[in-house]
Amino acid sequence: VSAEGGSVAAKPSGSASAQYETLLVTTEDKITTIKLNRPAKKNAITTVMYDEIVTALEQAGKDNSVLTVFTGAGDFYCSGNDLTNFTKIPDGGVELMAKQAGELLRKYVKAYIDFPKPLVAVVNGPAVGISVTALGLFDLVYATERATFHTPFSQLGQSAEGCSSYTFPKIMGNAKASEMLLFNKKLTAAQACDFGLVTEVFPDSSFNSEVWTRLKSYAALPPNSLALSKQLIRSTERERLHAVNDAEVELLVERWTSDECFTAIMNFFQSKAKL
Amino acid sequence: VSAEGGSVAAKPSGSASAQYETLLVTTEDKITTIKLNRPAKKNAITTVMYDEIVTALEQAGKDNSVLTVFTGAGDFYCSGNDLTNFTKIPDGGVELMAKQAGELLRKYVKAYIDFPKPLVAVVNGPAVGISVTALGLFDLVYATERATFHTPFSQLGQSAEGCSSYTFPKIMGNAKASEMLLFNKKLTAAQACDFGLVTEVFPDSSFNSEVWTRLKSYAALPPNSLALSKQLIRSTERERLHAVNDAEVELLVERWTSDECFTAIMNFFQSKAKL
Amino acid sequence: VSAEGGSVAAKPSGSASAQYETLLVTTEDKITTIKLNRPAKKNAITTVMYDEIVTALEQAGKDNSVLTVFTGAGDFYCSGNDLTNFTKIPDGGVELMAKQAGELLRKYVKAYIDFPKPLVAVVNGPAVGISVTALGLFDLVYATERATFHTPFSQLGQSAEGCSSYTFPKIMGNAKASEMLLFNKKLTAAQACDFGLVTEVFPDSSFNSEVWTRLKSYAALPPNSLALSKQLIRSTERERLHAVNDAEVELLVERWTSDECFTAIMNFFQSKAKL
Repeated sequence: VSAEGGSVAAKPSGSASAQYETLLVTTEDKITTIKLNRPAKKNAITTVMYDEIVTALEQAGKDNSVLTVFTGAGDFYCSGNDLTNFTKIPDGGVELMAKQAGELLRKYVKAYIDFPKPLVAVVNGPAVGISVTALGLFDLVYATERATFHTPFSQLGQSAEGCSSYTFPKIMGNAKASEMLLFNKKLTAAQACDFGLVTEVFPDSSFNSEVWTRLKSYAALPPNSLALSKQLIRSTERERLHAVNDAEVELLVERWTSDECFTAIMNFFQSKAKL
Repeated sequence: VSAEGGSVAAKPSGSASAQYETLLVTTEDKITTIKLNRPAKKNAITTVMYDEIVTALEQAGKDNSVLTVFTGAGDFYCSGNDLTNFTKIPDGGVELMAKQAGELLRKYVKAYIDFPKPLVAVVNGPAVGISVTALGLFDLVYATERATFHTPFSQLGQSAEGCSSYTFPKIMGNAKASEMLLFNKKLTAAQACDFGLVTEVFPDSSFNSEVWTRLKSYAALPPNSLALSKQLIRSTERERLHAVNDAEVELLVERWTSDECFTAIMNFFQSKAKL
Repeated sequence: VSAEGGSVAAKPSGSASAQYETLLVTTEDKITTIKLNRPAKKNAITTVMYDEIVTALEQAGKDNSVLTVFTGAGDFYCSGNDLTNFTKIPDGGVELMAKQAGELLRKYVKAYIDFPKPLVAVVNGPAVGISVTALGLFDLVYATERATFHTPFSQLGQSAEGCSSYTFPKIMGNAKASEMLLFNKKLTAAQACDFGLVTEVFPDSSFNSEVWTRLKSYAALPPNSLALSKQLIRSTERERLHAVNDAEVELLVERWTSDECFTAIMNFFQSKAKL
């Protein structure tokens, strides 16, 4: 049994909600943990999972916990958007699919922007795509040395989301941010920490024990002071973040209906099929 | 006699104003130095001292000096807000005290935002609370290797001020800023330099001589060019800084009248009394 | 023959325009390269050269290339504004000269702000003045270890341009930015990379081969995805950048007509004449 809250059965002292198909959500020691639970798929985010995460964030925002932690089951943190989301074309065609995917994405990112308590990412392994870009909306990001940070948007004919077109240049400057967001540069944990995307990196062997010891001590701090301080910091850019989210979604919807993006995603599936 | 301007008597070549109870203010080599002068109290800032610093900044802004330097007497730079400020409850009760303290804070931070010349912090030792957050409003920050940077707001049930809820995320990104502003992380001088809060760190043994040699050469540069360039940089965010100052003060006034903050400060005095 | 496109004659496979007096502009491997071509003058930018660069950027924005690269011929990247620009006083006097120079500068910086594709600086040697400040408007900045970054504005009685009064504090924080922009601090390539102004530094011996191998692979990515992603990032601050450009130009026009600036530039020429 690991320290960060495993399954409901193993954690009788914590509370857990069994309502999720793709997540393990537990509350213990004043910390609500949202754990992506598709380890066989490297925690790739399906349409169902986007919705479940939004619901889990809404509930965590209202429950009695002081901190909310986001992490992944297994060796991966999250491999990003599950590209099979794009293979279920509805009757309305690609345009409708793109529009619906855009609305889902907008709602998903909004849930992070508006989250009212300190939000902590415990990056337990490689992170890809939206799981990386959303880190710019977290308050703390702890990473194992095994973690990597990869946003291969242009490779797939797409563009940046999760407010990263604003947060990444703010955090690390354009010269570093563009190499990630435009040119698919993959960062090591040490680089991501050096660039300011990550708070601290830990050896993999002691990652869980060190991080959770620290988080438990943080969760004992005055809760209103923490929540209001976090909201104060967010208030300096909340409106801006919503506007950036809208602009990013608008561009992505255009991208998803473009030939360039279609071709790039087809190539991705074909190269995967060849492996 | 140290290089940075000691007492009036020891510095016949400079001018000094004896009007201050808590500060040593001298002008020499085109540099006005404001030195916090309560070394026995680690330069904790009392109500009187806030007012005197505002006055000293106003005068330094208007005098013939080219640079203004802020530093501390003794081994500490500044231990932040003197918590005994909260033990003098006026007839109007805690609400009135909080309101008055809020107005004083707003005026204090405003003096930094609107300061018209290059402002340099010579951080001669540990820095705490508002003496750390205000660094985000300085143009240069030189630190001895002995310096530390600590903002234990949530520990005392309080919240960030000095525009740090805006400047710290801008300087170092949310992932580093939140660990300081929400979770009381104390930085070493090297870390603060790495995160961009500090310009450069010097060995303690040569700190004064190296820093003051450099500052004297800077003070020989064309003064209008320096002042106007500083104002140009500030103009890109001056309005934003005033709005952030207002929002921070508003939250702190609420905090100061909260049970959570009262309890946290009582615990602080009790644990101090036990030592 | 170097990899980055030399002269027209040496590069029959690429296209080149011979319309420029001060630049070498070539297009090859989907990359348009604008090379400053006054190596004997360390690529100092004359009035003619400002105009030619604006034209070259306009054409590169419209041609079929995917990336645009900016670099310098010879050992220097660029020594900044050619101060002899200030020695040709028109009939209208210094005021008119300052006004015209201001309009040229505004137009020059605007061309960078509005550039619609990924813009890459290949910093092949020392960079001074506006060639440094404009780097804040690039998407990628690759530097040889021999490069240095120097903005001696106040030394010449002048003030910051190229939107650096906004981009530099954003990239590296005020404490680092002010030492460059106000106090003439010269950065090494490693420092500039550490502060976020530079994407990556390369050994001088392998600089060209490493950088151009990488750029060719980047130029093979989906072009619309790259251009639209770059525009998305820029859109989060485009208006702000234009306002900053205006404010910087306004202050510089004032500076150029000031006694302080006149004296400083005269001193510069006299000290040069003595060498």
